[in-house]
Amino acid sequence: MRWNKISDAVIRRLPLYLRVLDDLAAEGEIELISSQELGDRAGVGPALVRKDLAWFGEFGKQGVGYEVSFLRKELKRILNLDQEIPVALVGIGSLGGALARYHLKRYGEHASPNLNLIALFDTDPNKIGSSINGIPVFPFSEVNKHVEALGIKMAMITVPADQAQEVAVLLTKAGIKGILNFAPVKLNVPSDVQVSNADFSLELQRLAYYLPTTKQN
Amino acid sequence: MRWNKISDAVIRRLPLYLRVLDDLAAEGEIELISSQELGDRAGVGPALVRKDLAWFGEFGKQGVGYEVSFLRKELKRILNLDQEIPVALVGIGSLGGALARYHLKRYGEHASPNLNLIALFDTDPNKIGSSINGIPVFPFSEVNKHVEALGIKMAMITVPADQAQEVAVLLTKAGIKGILNFAPVKLNVPSDVQVSNADFSLELQRLAYYLPTTKQN
Repeated sequence: MRWNKISDAVIRRLPLYLRVLDDLAAEGEIELISSQELGDRAGVGPALVRKDLAWFGEFGKQGVGYEVSFLRKELKRILNLDQEIPVALVGIGSLGGALARYHLKRYGEHASPNLNLIALFDTDPNKIGSSINGIPVFPFSEVNKHVEALGIKMAMITVPADQAQEVAVLLTKAGIKGILNFAPVKLNVPSDVQVSNADFSLELQRLAYYLPTTKQN
Repeated sequence: MRWNKISDAVIRRLPLYLRVLDDLAAEGEIELISSQELGDRAGVGPALVRKDLAWFGEFGKQGVGYEVSFLRKELKRILNLDQEIPVALVGIGSLGGALARYHLKRYGEHASPNLNLIALFDTDPNKIGSSINGIPVFPFSEVNKHVEALGIKMAMITVPADQAQEVAVLLTKAGIKGILNFAPVKLNVPSDVQVSNADFSLELQRLAYYLPTTKQN
């Protein structure tokens, strides 16, 4: 089980490096990049860049740096982004609808993330059968069928907090292995399912800690 | 400078603990909670709960646990959430609009986060002067005036990627000290400004790493 070997903190930084390499590839002018430059652009120290990448092989040459196109290709492979990954989204409320539009727009600009939102789910009869930017809204009661037919392994949850756990259970039963959860609750899922929490209220609370105040702790 | 003393990893977990305590306070049935139970509910090991909280004082009693209302009050104070914190949002596109609505709805349910979205900013004349759920949309050209008048120190950025850095610079000049950035770029800000990136495309890429595949790394 490779995810027991390499720290999740390392994995979290790989997409940052990939984004830098994507941008460089789009510019098309730089063929080699030093760990210093890659780190600067990704917001990570150069020693940590070298250490992170060394987990996966010897990608750079001392004194020369990393070959942009090669490292980019390797990172995509490591992150499973060398194949198209279909993604579902459950809960077409205000946030879900915005994410569906935003998602598409975002990935039009960046080549690497082969993550394609291809199915939306809701329970509202008024939404079922419609589409957002061509992505169909299916009834959540048929999630098993569509997830299997479309080979979907990853889903985003944007339902209200009190429904998120039930949705997570049903998604897991349907075969989903990765969940990006926007609901402000901790999800309980089987150990072979990975959850990321995209809970911006927690981020705001963290930021509040760092605000300048006159009081002492 | 207290933020040099305590690891950000610790700070990131405090809102998780606070959420558990908020829920318990809302239920109103449990007065004491063990580090085991608090950890289970927050998704953190009990030893780490004790270690995290010990940074800020002796909040619990061995063999007894933590007093819910006291610990909740202390965590709110530590996170600066014992006062109302006004928040701005820049960029009322699809995502920004959704966050404005979602934000409000969310905070109606949870008492603790005294984070109030009170000002929206955009450059589109068609949006300026309107409001979302009673929150006014101001012209971004007047951001200095409004941020100062309203005492705003924290802002969310939901503008397109190629405008985010410029917006961050102007927000910083207006006195903003904490930025939650939804644009898929790394922001360069002065060292006294804290940035959190709420970039769900990075989270999706991280999740992709953990998807079961047949290939070997």
